[in-house]
Amino acid sequence: MDNKVISLKAYLTERKGIVDQALDRFLPGEDRFPPLIFRSMRYSVFAGGKRLRPILCMAAADVLGGNMQSVLPVACAIEMIHTYSLIHDDLPLMDDDDFRRGMPTNHKVFGEGIAVLAGDALLTEAFHLMSCRENRGTESAEALLATISEISVASGFDGMVGGQVVDLDSEGKEADMETLHYIHSHKTEALLTVSIRAGAILSGASKTDLAALSAYGKGIGLAFQIADDILDIEGDRETLGKDTGSDEAHGKVTFPALLGLDGSRKKARESIDEALSQIARFDDRADPLRMIAQFIIERRS
Amino acid sequence: MDNKVISLKAYLTERKGIVDQALDRFLPGEDRFPPLIFRSMRYSVFAGGKRLRPILCMAAADVLGGNMQSVLPVACAIEMIHTYSLIHDDLPLMDDDDFRRGMPTNHKVFGEGIAVLAGDALLTEAFHLMSCRENRGTESAEALLATISEISVASGFDGMVGGQVVDLDSEGKEADMETLHYIHSHKTEALLTVSIRAGAILSGASKTDLAALSAYGKGIGLAFQIADDILDIEGDRETLGKDTGSDEAHGKVTFPALLGLDGSRKKARESIDEALSQIARFDDRADPLRMIAQFIIERRS
Repeated sequence: MDNKVISLKAYLTERKGIVDQALDRFLPGEDRFPPLIFRSMRYSVFAGGKRLRPILCMAAADVLGGNMQSVLPVACAIEMIHTYSLIHDDLPLMDDDDFRRGMPTNHKVFGEGIAVLAGDALLTEAFHLMSCRENRGTESAEALLATISEISVASGFDGMVGGQVVDLDSEGKEADMETLHYIHSHKTEALLTVSIRAGAILSGASKTDLAALSAYGKGIGLAFQIADDILDIEGDRETLGKDTGSDEAHGKVTFPALLGLDGSRKKARESIDEALSQIARFDDRADPLRMIAQFIIERRS
Repeated sequence: MDNKVISLKAYLTERKGIVDQALDRFLPGEDRFPPLIFRSMRYSVFAGGKRLRPILCMAAADVLGGNMQSVLPVACAIEMIHTYSLIHDDLPLMDDDDFRRGMPTNHKVFGEGIAVLAGDALLTEAFHLMSCRENRGTESAEALLATISEISVASGFDGMVGGQVVDLDSEGKEADMETLHYIHSHKTEALLTVSIRAGAILSGASKTDLAALSAYGKGIGLAFQIADDILDIEGDRETLGKDTGSDEAHGKVTFPALLGLDGSRKKARESIDEALSQIARFDDRADPLRMIAQFIIERRS
C-alpha cells in the first residue's frame, strides 16, 4: 500500500467519525416519544454507511476555505436524505431487498409501515436541520435557502425520485443507453453532485469554482454508479453486505449489460479522469477530492 | 341559510379557486418526464380537497395585512405536504384505505411503488417551492427559513409522522385519552396550526399576534379532529366520499369511543369557543377565521 492509500483511509475514517458524531447529536434518541420511530431512523442511519456524501460536502468547503460549522448540518441532512431513499427503495413494493450493508433492511426489522414513516421522518428532518436556527454557522440566510432549494431539486422528481420512478418502470423491459443514463444521473449523480455544490455554495463559491466542482461531481457520480453495477456482478457478498446479482435477477438495465465489463471499466476510468481534470486548477486543499475520485472506482464495497 | 353561511361559502369557493390555480401552476404537467410521477402527484392533489390549510394560511396573512404573493407558495407547499401524508396513510401497509374523497386512493390507481414515490416527491417539492428564488415575494430570507423550519417540525417526528406512528402502533390496543390526544394533536392539529403560523410569520406578526393565532389554530385543530371522528360514525358515505365506520373496523381510538357522541360534540363546541375568544381582539379582517371556525364543526364532509 502506498502513502496515498494509507492517508486516504485515515482521512475517510476521521471524516466519517465527525459525521457519525454529528448525526448522533442531530438525531433524537430513543428516550424521546415515540421511541419506535427514533429506533427505526437510527437503525438505518447507523447501519454502516461510508458517509461519502457528507464527506464530499465538507471536502468541497475545504477547497474554498469554508467553515465546518456551517457545512456540517447540511452535510448530515444530505446523509439523512440518502438514508431515507435507501429505506424506501428497499421496500417490497419497490426493489424488495432483504439485506443492506450486511444487515436486514429496515422493513424486515420494523415492518413496512414504520419503514415508510422512518423514511418520511428522515426526509422531513433533513429540511428541519438545514433551516432551524440552532444549527446556524456563519452562512447567510440566502445561501442556506439556495442550498435547500438545490438539495430539494436533486432529491425530488427532477432528481432521485425521478430516477427511481424510471428504474421501477423499466424493470423487466428492454432498456437502452438513454434510459440507463437517465436513471443513474437522477438516482445517484444528482445527490452526489449537490453534496459538493452545497459545500461550495455555503462557502461562498464563485461561479467558476462552482462550475468546476459540479463537473467533478458529475464525473465521480457516473463512475460511482458504473462501479456499483460492476460490484453487483463481481463483488463478494460478504464485503458488499448485500446479495450480488440482484440487478440481473430484477431484469435491471446496467452498464455491464450494455457495454460489457471491460467497456464499463473503461468508461468509469474516463469519467474519473474528466473529474480530476476539472479540479486541476485548485491547490492541495483539493487533494481529498482527488483521492476520493480514485477511491470511487477502486472500492470493493 | 343566513348571510354569514352564504358569504362563507363564497369566500371558501373563491379562495379554493386561487389555491387550485396556484397548485396547477406550481406542479409540472404530464408533458414533463417521467409523466407517470406527475400524473400520480396531480391525481391526489386535484382529488377534491377543501384546501383548508392553505386557506387558513392566507387568512392569517390577511388579518395582519400580509402580502398574498409571499404566502401563496408556502400555502400550496403545506397542501402538498397534506396530500403526501394522505397518500402514504392510505397505503395497505398503513391504514389500507381504498377510497378517499369518493375516488380510488392513489395506490389503487398507480400501484404502491408509485404511490410511495408520489408522496415522497410531493413532500420534497413542498420544500423546493418554499425555498426557490422564482416564487419569492416580499418576505425576508430569515422569515422564510423560520417558516420552513416550523413546517418541517409540524410534519416530522414531532408532528404528523409522530402522530401516525402512535396511531399505527395503537391499532387494536386499549387506548386512553392521553394517547388519543397525542395522536390528534400531532396528526392533525400540528399542520393546521402551522398553516396559520406560517401565514402570520411571513406577514411579520408580532409575538402577541402569533400567540393568539396559534391558540386559535390549536382550538380549531382539536375541533376538526373531533368532527372527523363524529363524521366517521354519523356521516354519509356519499357526502363523505369514503367508507364510514373505518375507525371502529380498525380498532382505532376515537373521541366518540371515549366521550360518547354528545360528550364529543360538547368538547368540539368548547374548543371552537376558545378559538374564537383568542382572536376576539382582531378587527373584521379576522372574520374569515371566525367563519371558518364555525364551518369546522358544521361541515358534512
